[in-house]
Amino acid sequence: MAESPAKKARAQSEKGIAVLAYSGGLDTSCILLWLIEQGYEVVAYTADVGQGDDFEAVKKKAMQCGAKKYVVKDLKKDFVLENIWPAVQANAKYEDRYLLGTSLARPCITKGMMEVVREEGADFISHGATGKGNDQIRMELSAYALKPDIQIIAPWKMPEFYNRFHGRKDLFEYAKLNNIPLPVTTSAPWSMDGNLMHISYEAGILEDPKVAAPSDMYQMTSDPLTSPDEPDKLEIEFKHGVPIRVKNLKDGTEKTDALELYLYLNEVGGKHGIGRIDVVENRYIGMKSRGVYECPAATILIEAHLDIENITMDKAMRRIKHDLSLRFTEQVYEGYWYSPENVFVRHCIHKSQEDVEGCVTVLLHKGHTYIISRHSPKSLYNEQLVSMDVKGDYEPLDALGFIKVNAVRLKEYSRLRGMDASNKTS
Amino acid sequence: MAESPAKKARAQSEKGIAVLAYSGGLDTSCILLWLIEQGYEVVAYTADVGQGDDFEAVKKKAMQCGAKKYVVKDLKKDFVLENIWPAVQANAKYEDRYLLGTSLARPCITKGMMEVVREEGADFISHGATGKGNDQIRMELSAYALKPDIQIIAPWKMPEFYNRFHGRKDLFEYAKLNNIPLPVTTSAPWSMDGNLMHISYEAGILEDPKVAAPSDMYQMTSDPLTSPDEPDKLEIEFKHGVPIRVKNLKDGTEKTDALELYLYLNEVGGKHGIGRIDVVENRYIGMKSRGVYECPAATILIEAHLDIENITMDKAMRRIKHDLSLRFTEQVYEGYWYSPENVFVRHCIHKSQEDVEGCVTVLLHKGHTYIISRHSPKSLYNEQLVSMDVKGDYEPLDALGFIKVNAVRLKEYSRLRGMDASNKTS
Amino acid sequence: MAESPAKKARAQSEKGIAVLAYSGGLDTSCILLWLIEQGYEVVAYTADVGQGDDFEAVKKKAMQCGAKKYVVKDLKKDFVLENIWPAVQANAKYEDRYLLGTSLARPCITKGMMEVVREEGADFISHGATGKGNDQIRMELSAYALKPDIQIIAPWKMPEFYNRFHGRKDLFEYAKLNNIPLPVTTSAPWSMDGNLMHISYEAGILEDPKVAAPSDMYQMTSDPLTSPDEPDKLEIEFKHGVPIRVKNLKDGTEKTDALELYLYLNEVGGKHGIGRIDVVENRYIGMKSRGVYECPAATILIEAHLDIENITMDKAMRRIKHDLSLRFTEQVYEGYWYSPENVFVRHCIHKSQEDVEGCVTVLLHKGHTYIISRHSPKSLYNEQLVSMDVKGDYEPLDALGFIKVNAVRLKEYSRLRGMDASNKTS
Amino acid sequence: MAESPAKKARAQSEKGIAVLAYSGGLDTSCILLWLIEQGYEVVAYTADVGQGDDFEAVKKKAMQCGAKKYVVKDLKKDFVLENIWPAVQANAKYEDRYLLGTSLARPCITKGMMEVVREEGADFISHGATGKGNDQIRMELSAYALKPDIQIIAPWKMPEFYNRFHGRKDLFEYAKLNNIPLPVTTSAPWSMDGNLMHISYEAGILEDPKVAAPSDMYQMTSDPLTSPDEPDKLEIEFKHGVPIRVKNLKDGTEKTDALELYLYLNEVGGKHGIGRIDVVENRYIGMKSRGVYECPAATILIEAHLDIENITMDKAMRRIKHDLSLRFTEQVYEGYWYSPENVFVRHCIHKSQEDVEGCVTVLLHKGHTYIISRHSPKSLYNEQLVSMDVKGDYEPLDALGFIKVNAVRLKEYSRLRGMDASNKTS
Repeated sequence: MAESPAKKARAQSEKGIAVLAYSGGLDTSCILLWLIEQGYEVVAYTADVGQGDDFEAVKKKAMQCGAKKYVVKDLKKDFVLENIWPAVQANAKYEDRYLLGTSLARPCITKGMMEVVREEGADFISHGATGKGNDQIRMELSAYALKPDIQIIAPWKMPEFYNRFHGRKDLFEYAKLNNIPLPVTTSAPWSMDGNLMHISYEAGILEDPKVAAPSDMYQMTSDPLTSPDEPDKLEIEFKHGVPIRVKNLKDGTEKTDALELYLYLNEVGGKHGIGRIDVVENRYIGMKSRGVYECPAATILIEAHLDIENITMDKAMRRIKHDLSLRFTEQVYEGYWYSPENVFVRHCIHKSQEDVEGCVTVLLHKGHTYIISRHSPKSLYNEQLVSMDVKGDYEPLDALGFIKVNAVRLKEYSRLRGMDASNKTS
Repeated sequence: MAESPAKKARAQSEKGIAVLAYSGGLDTSCILLWLIEQGYEVVAYTADVGQGDDFEAVKKKAMQCGAKKYVVKDLKKDFVLENIWPAVQANAKYEDRYLLGTSLARPCITKGMMEVVREEGADFISHGATGKGNDQIRMELSAYALKPDIQIIAPWKMPEFYNRFHGRKDLFEYAKLNNIPLPVTTSAPWSMDGNLMHISYEAGILEDPKVAAPSDMYQMTSDPLTSPDEPDKLEIEFKHGVPIRVKNLKDGTEKTDALELYLYLNEVGGKHGIGRIDVVENRYIGMKSRGVYECPAATILIEAHLDIENITMDKAMRRIKHDLSLRFTEQVYEGYWYSPENVFVRHCIHKSQEDVEGCVTVLLHKGHTYIISRHSPKSLYNEQLVSMDVKGDYEPLDALGFIKVNAVRLKEYSRLRGMDASNKTS
Repeated sequence: MAESPAKKARAQSEKGIAVLAYSGGLDTSCILLWLIEQGYEVVAYTADVGQGDDFEAVKKKAMQCGAKKYVVKDLKKDFVLENIWPAVQANAKYEDRYLLGTSLARPCITKGMMEVVREEGADFISHGATGKGNDQIRMELSAYALKPDIQIIAPWKMPEFYNRFHGRKDLFEYAKLNNIPLPVTTSAPWSMDGNLMHISYEAGILEDPKVAAPSDMYQMTSDPLTSPDEPDKLEIEFKHGVPIRVKNLKDGTEKTDALELYLYLNEVGGKHGIGRIDVVENRYIGMKSRGVYECPAATILIEAHLDIENITMDKAMRRIKHDLSLRFTEQVYEGYWYSPENVFVRHCIHKSQEDVEGCVTVLLHKGHTYIISRHSPKSLYNEQLVSMDVKGDYEPLDALGFIKVNAVRLKEYSRLRGMDASNKTS
Repeated sequence: MAESPAKKARAQSEKGIAVLAYSGGLDTSCILLWLIEQGYEVVAYTADVGQGDDFEAVKKKAMQCGAKKYVVKDLKKDFVLENIWPAVQANAKYEDRYLLGTSLARPCITKGMMEVVREEGADFISHGATGKGNDQIRMELSAYALKPDIQIIAPWKMPEFYNRFHGRKDLFEYAKLNNIPLPVTTSAPWSMDGNLMHISYEAGILEDPKVAAPSDMYQMTSDPLTSPDEPDKLEIEFKHGVPIRVKNLKDGTEKTDALELYLYLNEVGGKHGIGRIDVVENRYIGMKSRGVYECPAATILIEAHLDIENITMDKAMRRIKHDLSLRFTEQVYEGYWYSPENVFVRHCIHKSQEDVEGCVTVLLHKGHTYIISRHSPKSLYNEQLVSMDVKGDYEPLDALGFIKVNAVRLKEYSRLRGMDASNKTS
């Protein structure tokens, strides 16, 4: 049997070691082959961030493609603790809606990759992210920040690669030629990316923003139209702005381990169809793209966190923290996790969460999360003070002066400029 | 039969005319009497902002209480066009959740009141808002801005009033003594305030934030647990950032008039239990208070507006507009509608909406609003450009330089300061 | 000789102990008397924040007025370390110009006062700040924050006081009647307030904003028109964003103690007429007021700090820190030093200054501070990288992609909406 | 005599017409030659933005180099009206110090260039900006925005160019070879760029940030050490936030034309050594660079504008406008003049200036601008209201309530969390 081109190439490997972010799919398998063909030794690397793949099968495929070695790193707990928790503290929603499921995973994945680089003494990394997307940026910026002299091979940005492989068909041919096992299933008419936080769907039929996503596309969440009629009621306990306990008040299930708790919220939230969104968002590179996401646990957690935060955090401090959260969100979306500014903002947000603790009761039902009550040992809510029935330590007369002083500049302005026309905005 | 004290007082009215914001309830009826007792002639005024009261009955009661005159102003359309539409343009959510249903109504109500002041030649206004709430501020700041020399009589901030009437029981006695018809129903164990935009519930049993709101409290929305299993699908068309047409794709119902469209969204949204929230919020005066709100139409509209805005507005412009929206929201919550800064911000937001137009399809079901698709003649989404299958006017190679240049400062920072420890935030 | 009314009153003192912020001037002397008259025991308190008064004389006067005790606290070093240094780190300029000399002193003064309250077991504090100014707010908010149950006696906000004493003349009469030594000098036609950071001038002839301040008014700074022709050149060394060493390169004088260093900068800066400004500013209560300030050391330090900060701080981080600084500045101006938000912001800004260190050389001459050079062990400036003559670790080609990708959305926008008219702003 | 290589190349010109931003210097002369060599027809273009060159000489040189045509456009007035005035309205200082003299000129220059492109039917533009600087970005982004299909030839980003010409010496040789007149003077040991707004100096000996700039470098401003002892006093009148009249109160000189007024301020300001700064700034591409600038007129105008703005603009509105100004400044620095966001922000800022009018008196002396008084028909300053001597329409008692209500949340926070430790920031 004739030697495959890749095998031949391997023999000639002289350029050094490249660590490839490898999924086992058609794209990264072809890239693996191609890298060997170009003269690199390839260490295939997979980050286990909860995507639920069969890593044994991935490994087998990597070795078949000619990888020098296959490394899988279990980063699930790191991902929750180091990346998702700060996003919960920030109530992070990019452009008011997207919960950053992919954006948060990329620095985690890249951090693991850079560890492999160090362990293997590699000089290169490679990945299969396209040249139009956000993920190339998130991975490459993270890599440069973690190891400024790293060399990055991004085939989808290299004309010699993308002018050779124009689409799936070319990759298919190339795989076949190199005796690489081909995917048996026909590909879905969209592209997806998943981890324990979310699954994102884009491209293919979703590229037309006026076409609704098909109902059979979703994998983490039930269809709310057919999800259970009976809700679940959970109590979520926070400390320092992150969940430390979830209890299902219906059946008594309780989770306290961060990863288990997160996966449990995915399970219950998913059962009730929670966390689906369909958006057009602005990529860092300035294109608008359409994405559909399902993200059960984080959707619940951010609702609950917003609630416990507002009963425990001072109003004026909240505004400042909110501005910082906006910056955090933009930075993470754009790939700046490992940047001085994001480290700084994470520090500040973390500081703001010192007293964010207590329990929130949420009801999950048919795609929606209802906050129904909350209590906290660090509550700044004073029932006496706000009560309509008792005065508390508050003199209503004081409000008179408060309003009159706040009106000083309004009255001056009105006297001098007039306010009658002020409802006109154009 | 003996003359009531109020009737006697009326004869002596010498202080001038006071326009009273009058609801027909126990509080403002007693205030009406009391004002007469203090020597004012009282014009009772009601703003019809869609609260759905029987204004004939209110008028009758006002006259019974001794009002010189009763004026009702139909401000429903003004409220939608002048106050709610700007909030939709701003995607306004105070502290990320509250849609400002009361905050937006107050300047509208006060504007009508100041017209009555002018029409009647009054020197005083009066209202029944308490000294602990936001509404006193919103009304009084609006009044001062619209007529800097207005005199405001706010009995709940006057010791001679609030030391005399300690609670509902005292008001009840006072009403009885003055032959004022008493409310026949026992009062609900909470306080509510409604208009066409929302109903808010607070106080009473809701003062304990760890007690869930009772399910029979809600009046605008069905319980999502029992609301229809079959969703409604609506197409909402926007122009200049405000809705100009709503079409129910199931039954063909179509509305184009702003007020009708808004009420229709309330109806359909309410049927599906949409727009309920339960929050602890920060009042302007620095107390935290617990409020429960139902706000169907605006909940749907803001979701839809967010969506059409993001496909038609440039990314960098969106960020600036978002910051302005935050300011808008805080200003409106705190009563600064008629302020130079709010007029300015409204102008800027309005300007930003020039090209925000197009159609959004939404699915309403069991308390949740799903955005499922959108299209716009002013879309900045370019399917060719973003496509994974075609290159469009985009050279993947360019992303290489983009990333490398963006990495310049990260690499420098990392070289000089290190990034390994950068995931640590504390 | 007849007993003065105040002496009589003292005997009857029954209301408890009031700590009065006492300057020895006519106003606070009369307030001292009046408080005794009202039945308080008065502890007169002066904070030494560098105003340069003769505290023995002040004490003598306080005792003559009937004070139970006189306490002076030397807070000069605290003021520099705890209040001025954070403002330098923040480059704090209220409304772009005012360096907060009074705003920063108030929380320092009040903190000392609250210590006296604790030491003396007092229940009351009192001060002579007027009801139109910012200082009443700064002191009272600080006092409430430090001791929520403190009772504040602010005579200039009490009708029984301000309706009795309409102006300087009434106070004069009252002092005379009570055998209090009167000021021998006729008062300047303006009001002034000073501490080691600055002197502020306002009121009197300065109330007309179109009248220039007289040149003989200034006390900390020489007139730049006649100040030395020969400049001084100083090297200022920073660590953690605060100065740790100042060296005069002309004569070798060197200061490292914070307070000495600050006073030395006042001396040299003052000699060269540095730090005078004349502004109309917005008071917290919504009035515009005109103030003239002289503030030598802080003017120099903020210029120098801006410079060392920019060579040592990452660009993106700087923007976030700048936003926080704006908040810091507004909060401090408005009296919120002891607030959760200011504590938080100070923490964040402090964190941002970890690597802000190095030396700045400044030239002081005729009212102006010139930054002429700087160097830092933590510099992020890379001469190789930026050089026009060497490439450094930078590939010019990369800028091509950087620009093209950044142009993506501009080109899309231009194609769809046009940019030709975009220079028109109205 | 042998034909020069460029002349030969010209004959073969086949690629089309390129408009080259041409200064007449060595760099752009060589680029002109090189473009011809590459097969382009070259239209040499100079924007007259007040750099004061001899355009006849520049033209002669362009033609000698083989240009098809030379076009000079007088954009001085456009530059002032369309670019500088918005910056004055914004009080624009990049990173608190740099007044954007070059940043503002680039979109103006590029706009003129794109007009030439249209007039000449060109498909290409070219420029001599380096690949490390900001100017390439400003010009190219502007060009793409104004004409999305423009093709840009930037030799300093093309390896075939920059690998051929490594420095000044190579260009010199190339010019000589092509019979191009060489610069007679030896080049200064720094690089400079000037227009009517400013001159910037960088590179060469200035690349070391700890080396002070030589005093003989400056061209627009006198050395403050030797500038006149006698100040000039000017009255500057603003309308809509831009200067409409400048009057020298010493000699009566008066200017009302925008360009004349601007040049006059340069003249007087320059005479007094005003507007010199020496900074390390952050370039868009993430490098820190050291720049020295002199910018007399704008320095004076921003000081004066800040002053008239603060007496005529409401305080709360000012804060919002200030945030917009920060965005404006960053956008302009980074080259986004022709972007949707900058057009939007310019519109908003312009709107904010409607009532910014009045006169400011400034004193210019030895490098410093002193604001000494101001008056305005649109002043919001109310002498009665703020006066210490009269009450005006203000009740001091109201301040009591104002403070107490503002203290509500501080007291709550302090009771529950404590404030004693709050001065600690670390």
